Amino acid sequence: MSHALELAKQLIAWPSVTPARGAVFEAVEAMLTARGFTVDRFTAGEAPDGPVENLLAWRGEGGPHFAFAGHLDVVPPGDGWSADPFAAEVKGDLLYGRGAVDMKGAIAAFIAALDRVEQHTGTISLVLTGDEEGPAIFGTRALIERIAMRGLKPDLCLVGEPTSVHRLGDTIKIGRRGSVNIWIKVPGTQGHVAYPALADNPIPKLVRALARIDAVHLDDGTDWFQPSNIEITDLEVGNPASNVIPARARARLSIRFNDLHRGDDLAARVRDLVLAEAPDAIVTPRVSGEAFLTEPGAFSGLVAAAIRDHTGIEPELSTSGGTSDARFLSKLCPVVEFGLPNATMHKLDEAVALADLEGLTAIYADIMRRALG
Amino acid sequence: MSHALELAKQLIAWPSVTPARGAVFEAVEAMLTARGFTVDRFTAGEAPDGPVENLLAWRGEGGPHFAFAGHLDVVPPGDGWSADPFAAEVKGDLLYGRGAVDMKGAIAAFIAALDRVEQHTGTISLVLTGDEEGPAIFGTRALIERIAMRGLKPDLCLVGEPTSVHRLGDTIKIGRRGSVNIWIKVPGTQGHVAYPALADNPIPKLVRALARIDAVHLDDGTDWFQPSNIEITDLEVGNPASNVIPARARARLSIRFNDLHRGDDLAARVRDLVLAEAPDAIVTPRVSGEAFLTEPGAFSGLVAAAIRDHTGIEPELSTSGGTSDARFLSKLCPVVEFGLPNATMHKLDEAVALADLEGLTAIYADIMRRALG
Ligand SMILES: [Zn+2]
Ligand SMILES: [Zn+2]
Repeated sequence: MSHALELAKQLIAWPSVTPARGAVFEAVEAMLTARGFTVDRFTAGEAPDGPVENLLAWRGEGGPHFAFAGHLDVVPPGDGWSADPFAAEVKGDLLYGRGAVDMKGAIAAFIAALDRVEQHTGTISLVLTGDEEGPAIFGTRALIERIAMRGLKPDLCLVGEPTSVHRLGDTIKIGRRGSVNIWIKVPGTQGHVAYPALADNPIPKLVRALARIDAVHLDDGTDWFQPSNIEITDLEVGNPASNVIPARARARLSIRFNDLHRGDDLAARVRDLVLAEAPDAIVTPRVSGEAFLTEPGAFSGLVAAAIRDHTGIEPELSTSGGTSDARFLSKLCPVVEFGLPNATMHKLDEAVALADLEGLTAIYADIMRRALG
Repeated sequence: MSHALELAKQLIAWPSVTPARGAVFEAVEAMLTARGFTVDRFTAGEAPDGPVENLLAWRGEGGPHFAFAGHLDVVPPGDGWSADPFAAEVKGDLLYGRGAVDMKGAIAAFIAALDRVEQHTGTISLVLTGDEEGPAIFGTRALIERIAMRGLKPDLCLVGEPTSVHRLGDTIKIGRRGSVNIWIKVPGTQGHVAYPALADNPIPKLVRALARIDAVHLDDGTDWFQPSNIEITDLEVGNPASNVIPARARARLSIRFNDLHRGDDLAARVRDLVLAEAPDAIVTPRVSGEAFLTEPGAFSGLVAAAIRDHTGIEPELSTSGGTSDARFLSKLCPVVEFGLPNATMHKLDEAVALADLEGLTAIYADIMRRALG
């Protein structure tokens, strides 16, 4: 029986729905101390977005310093599984369970890979949070402060998110788009539709502002990123009376942007467009992450070489999809994301192929050898 | 004590919140049969907008035929009255009660006026519904069918709605704008904001359609009407998730239009604008009334002369405000609306000045004499 499989079953068996706490961290701590790691577990933050449990572990000292990052929390299993989502059962060639691919399977593969790299120069560290699937306010961000406090800044960081699409190794991520949500509220003066001069309808102002925003062309994409994109995701007035001009109108935008932009600049640009049509509007942006790019180079080449040697596949260098905690880690050092095939992530009957667990273990070990060689 | 006052107190004392039924109709029937009228009471329609009670009454025969139209239902009193809203109490110079001005006071004044016009040529009729403040589907429209059935088509119709603004007689209505509400629903395909190519966001299409509609200039008004007006009264998407592209978006419009337009034409024009941006949109119009105008002439001159003789005021010929049942009656004959000062209509402590009840009685009698002379 595969070593990575045993570890993955142990991790899945702890039902660590986000935010993860306690037992699953105990299990990982035991696995890492048994492998010579120093383990620093700590909690960060307060309600409502905390407290959050995190774990930083390291072995060796000096450079080069290679870090593996990930999360021990999982999304809720939901109803309708064929079996207990935390039973961690193998059926045929698959290991089933919430977190099997996102991303306890990858953490198990990395820990198993450590046994194949017992001798190494420099430092290996693990950066594991209990809150990536939740608000993620006191997770990886707190870990980055902890890393700074302990002087453990890595030179390279591999994030074990499930980036593979059809086959293990077909895709790695070298960047992610940034994300900003913007709430727009346009005030007006309520009145009767028969007497429009006595009222001030906020809706036409909002509509004109949104039409301006809709006409904005942010960019044509870059060598590594698809074009930045603005979506209007909600409209809300809440006026049940057909003969009443309402007192306010609201909209919400979501912008996913590439590394040609910064979240604050986009928010300011949207604000200007809104205020041009509705000077009284209230525009509230929330930047949840800046875009980042690890320029294709030594690190992505190293990861790709390890994948090619074990699978024969040349991985695509992707920047698509949603945000991940890699956006925070990219402030420390070059970051590449690579993990299991993601077809079942966040779905019912999440499952990982036993062969992929084994393959990922071999690739992770190879990446470590190349990074620390 | 004034005769009109006595009748008004009797009518107010029956709490005929819309739809009016039974007792208040019994009271009016008794008043009219005592004055030589033939009374035809009938109910029309079924749930949910019926059944509705209506009353048609007539005295005399042949032409000229003068009709008085109105409603016996009242809007709900609401909380906060200084006294029982159906007590019909006189305090100082005012008679208080729900319906005092809208429009039991006017009906009482008209019935009292009948006693001053005992000899007349032609026909006098009353067209009274129990549902003007409600859906108004089976009220005046059913009365118009009844009028046709009985061959009682009037030559002139006075509607007793409270048209006066500051002083009794300062305003009569010779027309009303039409009204059409339009519901727009744009379908799309739900998806994740990170993968816009896999989704089809309905909001930009709706926004562009609404921007086109907002830019429409219907007209500059006419000699008798203010400009037609489109108001967007509601927007609704109902998408709580900031990272989700929604599956549909909705809006609602209210158009108040003058006699340069017809409701169906406006609805078709809006539909074309919507479909140009959103070919899959569903556009659902409801025309609640066409515009009508009784061109200033003999009838409005006759009403104005009666007002002038009793008050010294030259009434303004207005077409402003919301819709009224006059929109239906205008299909039969020239219609003018004239009644009490409307400052307290639909409000708490609705009240009519005793002097205005008396003045309105005199004016209504004078109008009848001039119309039937
Ligand atoms: Zn994940
Ligand atoms: Zn009324």
